Amino acid sequence: MQIALDAMGGDHGPEELIGGALLAVKQSSLQVTLVGNQQILQAHLDRLRSDDIGSSQIQIVHAAEVVEMGESPVDAIRKKKDSSVLVAFELVRQGLADAAVSAGNSGATMAAAVRKLGRMEHVSRPGIASIFPTLKKPVVMMDVGANVDCRPQHLFQFAVMASAFSHIFDIDRPRIGLLSIGEEVGKGNTLVKETYARLAASSLNFVGNVEGRDVFQGDVDVIVCDGFVGNICLKLSEGLAGAAMQMLKDEIMKSTAAKIGYFLARPAFRAFARRVDYAEYGGAPLLGVNGIGIICHGKSSAEAIKNAILEAAKMVEKQVNQRIIEGLAANAQDEELVI
Amino acid sequence: MQIALDAMGGDHGPEELIGGALLAVKQSSLQVTLVGNQQILQAHLDRLRSDDIGSSQIQIVHAAEVVEMGESPVDAIRKKKDSSVLVAFELVRQGLADAAVSAGNSGATMAAAVRKLGRMEHVSRPGIASIFPTLKKPVVMMDVGANVDCRPQHLFQFAVMASAFSHIFDIDRPRIGLLSIGEEVGKGNTLVKETYARLAASSLNFVGNVEGRDVFQGDVDVIVCDGFVGNICLKLSEGLAGAAMQMLKDEIMKSTAAKIGYFLARPAFRAFARRVDYAEYGGAPLLGVNGIGIICHGKSSAEAIKNAILEAAKMVEKQVNQRIIEGLAANAQDEELVI
Repeated sequence: MQIALDAMGGDHGPEELIGGALLAVKQSSLQVTLVGNQQILQAHLDRLRSDDIGSSQIQIVHAAEVVEMGESPVDAIRKKKDSSVLVAFELVRQGLADAAVSAGNSGATMAAAVRKLGRMEHVSRPGIASIFPTLKKPVVMMDVGANVDCRPQHLFQFAVMASAFSHIFDIDRPRIGLLSIGEEVGKGNTLVKETYARLAASSLNFVGNVEGRDVFQGDVDVIVCDGFVGNICLKLSEGLAGAAMQMLKDEIMKSTAAKIGYFLARPAFRAFARRVDYAEYGGAPLLGVNGIGIICHGKSSAEAIKNAILEAAKMVEKQVNQRIIEGLAANAQDEELVI
Repeated sequence: MQIALDAMGGDHGPEELIGGALLAVKQSSLQVTLVGNQQILQAHLDRLRSDDIGSSQIQIVHAAEVVEMGESPVDAIRKKKDSSVLVAFELVRQGLADAAVSAGNSGATMAAAVRKLGRMEHVSRPGIASIFPTLKKPVVMMDVGANVDCRPQHLFQFAVMASAFSHIFDIDRPRIGLLSIGEEVGKGNTLVKETYARLAASSLNFVGNVEGRDVFQGDVDVIVCDGFVGNICLKLSEGLAGAAMQMLKDEIMKSTAAKIGYFLARPAFRAFARRVDYAEYGGAPLLGVNGIGIICHGKSSAEAIKNAILEAAKMVEKQVNQRIIEGLAANAQDEELVI
């Protein structure tokens, strides 16, 4: 299997990204194509590659341009035809790669995926799914930012797509929750109430509304919401996890005993930090396009990039897109009934 | 100053509530009226009251009925005319109390406040403000659940009302942020974009959009959002704080050194838990009615009830409602311009 990696995007530069690619090929039989400036990438690769990695496992495809983090996604994708992110998705389009991964400008990655791969049939709006850590299994939330104003059919399609994606965790019949402000039917805003009826009438494994406090309990596999709410949840969680650790450390620094305690418990703190670090779970797939694309945090470490590459491969292996097509087809009739 | 406390509502029963009232009168010159079953309350009070509390500081007003936690708020308020929560707000209406506090059924508390006190002039929709802990000063988020489908004028009014409320923290010119999915103007859903224009054109101290990750940074004093988003943020934060502590403890339990470390750092953990415990900040005021009402968590401890009573007194002292009236009047003309 061949994964194209935009090796120029991201806050840490090509070195970290190539490091991630090397970690991925070392622990799998995957092949990774690094996309970007040939000369720069080759120089890093020569330095980083160990002898046990065959030349067939890592190759470079040249792309002359780079979309910068601050650029307007739409403009960048229109003007920089030879940018690493567009070339990576062009490889997927041509069947030369099975999936593309980028830690560059998120908007540009999304725009490149939609432009090169096109929307899937029956999908009104592609969306971004994100994996949240919970007390039990990870939960998939969708949409987390691609679509800020949604209609019920969009949320319904997110449910189908996120369920298909959750198969990468070997979940057979994913339990779907609708994010709302009360568990009872009838709770929520107009969008949620209308979506509830549609989900309840479908063949999906819809378990009802879930509240904000349920997100981290892990009692559902998929949480559906519009991209405005989902994006706020995602960033609020990141912000709170960081702020909570900071507050706890502030308290610990107030006493010597607590400082010693912290020193002794440090491995546990590190393990905890990894557990709540979103980057550890790989990246956020853009679902609803004819191909596989994963959007990573700009700040992704080599470890996070490795996880995103393995996640992309898992999506291919688990036939996520085929499941989406089947899921949408199976519910096309229900949808008509509920509209 | 006289605060009416619904002494029957809440998960822990009258004992905890009366405990909170006693704590409040001990450390202030406030008077608290306990509202509820005379016999039950008197029995608890006789047992709990210490000699240093004068009989003028705590009195009981009888109410024969109680709205249960699971009841439909609308039905309950219509049928149970002599319920403790309605009687508490009736005292405010008659000027016999300056504010009412309840830890009972939240919906019923809101309904009782609106029915007894009425909406303020120029307020389309009363809303609930909630205090979030941050790395710096607490931040006030509004609305957190009263209004799930909002229009820009509602969010604008929330900004005015939450700013007035934030004066209880002695903030002179509260910085107002609009919760969105990007800091730049133009980011967000339709509601947010329209609200942005209105806030920017007003005399309020509007600093622009804030993202989910900014909520806990404490760089703004007020965060404005619709009640659907705000309620999800509130419950997500509570859920995440709890889940994060659980995950950290799970990791700590894996090693003896970490367990010893935790033991040594326990006071810091406790201080942290208090810092992120919403109940510690008192309750959530219902703003936009002609009087002061505070909605507390059902699970409020005596300490939390005490804080809510002191918070209610602070709202009276800081003339929060007068500030709301002035704020709405000052911006009435701007509003016309922006509509």
